[in-house]
Amino acid sequence: MAVSTNFRRAFAGKRVLVTGGLGFIGSNLTRRLVDLGARLTIVDALIPEYGGNRRNLAGVASRVRVVRADVRDWARMARLVRGQDFLFNLAGQTSHMDSMTDPQTDLDINCRAQLAILEACRVHNPAIRIVFASTRQIYGKPDYLPVDEKHPLRPVDVNGINKLAGEEFHLLYSKVHGIRATALRLTNTIGPRMRVKDARQTFVGVWVRRLVEGQPFEVWGGGQLRDFTYVDDAVEAFLLAACRDEAVGEIFNLGGPPPVTLQRLAEVLVSINGGGDFVVREFPGDRKKIDIGDYYADDRLIGRKLGWKPRTDLRVMLKRTLEYYRRELKFYV
Amino acid sequence: MAVSTNFRRAFAGKRVLVTGGLGFIGSNLTRRLVDLGARLTIVDALIPEYGGNRRNLAGVASRVRVVRADVRDWARMARLVRGQDFLFNLAGQTSHMDSMTDPQTDLDINCRAQLAILEACRVHNPAIRIVFASTRQIYGKPDYLPVDEKHPLRPVDVNGINKLAGEEFHLLYSKVHGIRATALRLTNTIGPRMRVKDARQTFVGVWVRRLVEGQPFEVWGGGQLRDFTYVDDAVEAFLLAACRDEAVGEIFNLGGPPPVTLQRLAEVLVSINGGGDFVVREFPGDRKKIDIGDYYADDRLIGRKLGWKPRTDLRVMLKRTLEYYRRELKFYV
Repeated sequence: MAVSTNFRRAFAGKRVLVTGGLGFIGSNLTRRLVDLGARLTIVDALIPEYGGNRRNLAGVASRVRVVRADVRDWARMARLVRGQDFLFNLAGQTSHMDSMTDPQTDLDINCRAQLAILEACRVHNPAIRIVFASTRQIYGKPDYLPVDEKHPLRPVDVNGINKLAGEEFHLLYSKVHGIRATALRLTNTIGPRMRVKDARQTFVGVWVRRLVEGQPFEVWGGGQLRDFTYVDDAVEAFLLAACRDEAVGEIFNLGGPPPVTLQRLAEVLVSINGGGDFVVREFPGDRKKIDIGDYYADDRLIGRKLGWKPRTDLRVMLKRTLEYYRRELKFYV
Repeated sequence: MAVSTNFRRAFAGKRVLVTGGLGFIGSNLTRRLVDLGARLTIVDALIPEYGGNRRNLAGVASRVRVVRADVRDWARMARLVRGQDFLFNLAGQTSHMDSMTDPQTDLDINCRAQLAILEACRVHNPAIRIVFASTRQIYGKPDYLPVDEKHPLRPVDVNGINKLAGEEFHLLYSKVHGIRATALRLTNTIGPRMRVKDARQTFVGVWVRRLVEGQPFEVWGGGQLRDFTYVDDAVEAFLLAACRDEAVGEIFNLGGPPPVTLQRLAEVLVSINGGGDFVVREFPGDRKKIDIGDYYADDRLIGRKLGWKPRTDLRVMLKRTLEYYRRELKFYV
C-alpha cells in the first residue's frame, strides 16, 4: 500500500515514454502507469514477428498516445524523447533463433537504435530518467548458480551480444554523460499479454496456447532449470528502478520463485489446466548450439537496494496466464 | 629461422585479404606477407582521421592489390572475401575520443560492419581463416595487474563497447558457424608507419612527431603504467594465430617488455633522441572520464599456446620508430 502511494507521487502527471509499449511487458507497464495517472506515449513498430499487439491496451487505449514507429527511425525517436520525464526502453528483437538467421536486424534494433536513442536523450533531454530492459541472455552458459550480477558476460548468440552492447551503452551514458539510467536483466517473464503465436518471446507462450487449444505441446530437453518472473512483479521492478536514486547507473537481475525444471513446469501447467498432454523431445540441433543449460537468477541485489522481490508464486502466475488466454486467445493467434 | 620457414609454407601462394591494410599494423603485416610470397588484397577506406596512408606500402605497392573501399560497404566486402584463404581483419575506428563524439560511426565500423563481414564469410567463404584485431580497451579499468584474458570486460567508452561486440561476433561465428577465427587483444602498439598526425591511434605518435620536429610534447598524467608492443612482434602474432589450429576460437592478449610509466617512457624517448623536451600536465577532464588508469597485459597464454613472446625491448622499438620518422616524417603529417 505504501509503495503504491509512492508510485502515484512519482508518476502522476508525469510524461512517460514506453518503447515497445504494445508488447508484453511494455503494455502491462503502460496499463499500470495509466492507473497511476501518468501521461503515456508509447512507441511500437507492430512488427508481426515481435510482441506488439493492439489488444494489449484494450480498455486503456484512449488514455495513451500510441505512436506506430520503429526505434530504428532515429529522427522520429529524437522528437519523441523530448519533454519526457521517464523513458521505459523495452523495444527489442527477442528471438534468439531469429538473431542467428537475421543478425543485422537484431543488431540494428538491439544495439544501433539503442545508441541513437541515448544520443537523442543526451542532445535533447539529458534530464530524462531511463530504465532499460536487458536480459539474462548476456550471461551465456552459467559458471555457477544462482547467477548474480558479477557473473562473467559471455553471450552465446547474436541477440546476447547486441543486448549486452545495448545495456553497456545505457550504463556508459549514465556514467559519462549523466543520463540517469538503470538496466534490469530479465529472466523468463510470463503472464497475460505475452506472445503465444510462437516461441519468439518465450516457449511458455506456445505451451499455453496449445493447452488452451486442447493440443499437446512439446518440451525440449526438459531437465533444464529455469526461473520465471510474473509480469506484474517485473512491472513493479521497472517502476521502482525509475523512481529511486539508488538505482541510477545500476544493473539488477530479476528472478522469480524457486526455479523448476521445464518438465516440472509442464506438469504444473497441465495440472492447473485440469488436463492436457505434452511430449518431451530432444533439443533440436540448431538450438542446442545456442542453449544456455540451467539458469536461475540471484536477485538479492535489487532486494537489498530497492526492496523488490518476486511476489507471485509459480502456480498463481500460470493460473492467471491460462485464465487470460482462455478468454483472450482469439486476439493473439 | 625455423618459424620463418613455417610461415613461408603457410602463406606462400596463398590469397590473403587485409582490411585496414594501408594502416599501421595492417601495412606492416602486408609487407611481411608480401615477403612470404602471399597474394595480397588489401582494403582501406583512407579516411583522413584513420591510420591508412599510401606511403605505408612504399616499395611493395606493385605486388599488392589495393582496393579503396569501406568495410561499411557490405556488398563490396562480400565480393572481396570470396576465394580468400586468410582474412586479417584490422580495419577499425581507433580513437576513444572520436567514439564519444561520433558514436554511431564507431558502431557502424567496429561493430555493424564486422557482423556483415562475418555473414559474408559464412555465406560465401566458410573455409576462410580469420584473425581479428581486438583491443585491451574492452577490459576497461583493470581490477588487477597484469590483466589476463579472464579479466572482466567492462569497456569505459563507446569504442570499447563496439570492439567488444565485434570480437564476440568473431568468436560466436567460430563456435556456432565454424568460421575459424582468432582474436588478438592488442595493447599500445608502436613502430614505423603508425599515425603521428595526432593521438587518434596512439599518443606516442604525437610524441615522436613533436620530437622529430624539435618541439616539446605533452605527457598527460604521467604516472600511468602501460605496456608497448613493437609492431613487428604484433605482426608475428597475427601470422602465428592464422596458421595454428590451436588458435581457432581463442582470444589472446598481446603484451610487451616490462611496463613503464608514461613519464618514464617520455624520458627514455628523449634520451634516445639525444635531447628534447616534454611537459607533464594534468589529464584533460573529458578524457579522464574514459581513462583506464594503469594497464599491462598478461600475455603468457599466447606464449604457452603458440610460443609467441614480445622480442623487441623498449629502447630498440623507440629507436627504430624515431629513425623511421626522421626519414619519413614528411609523408605522415
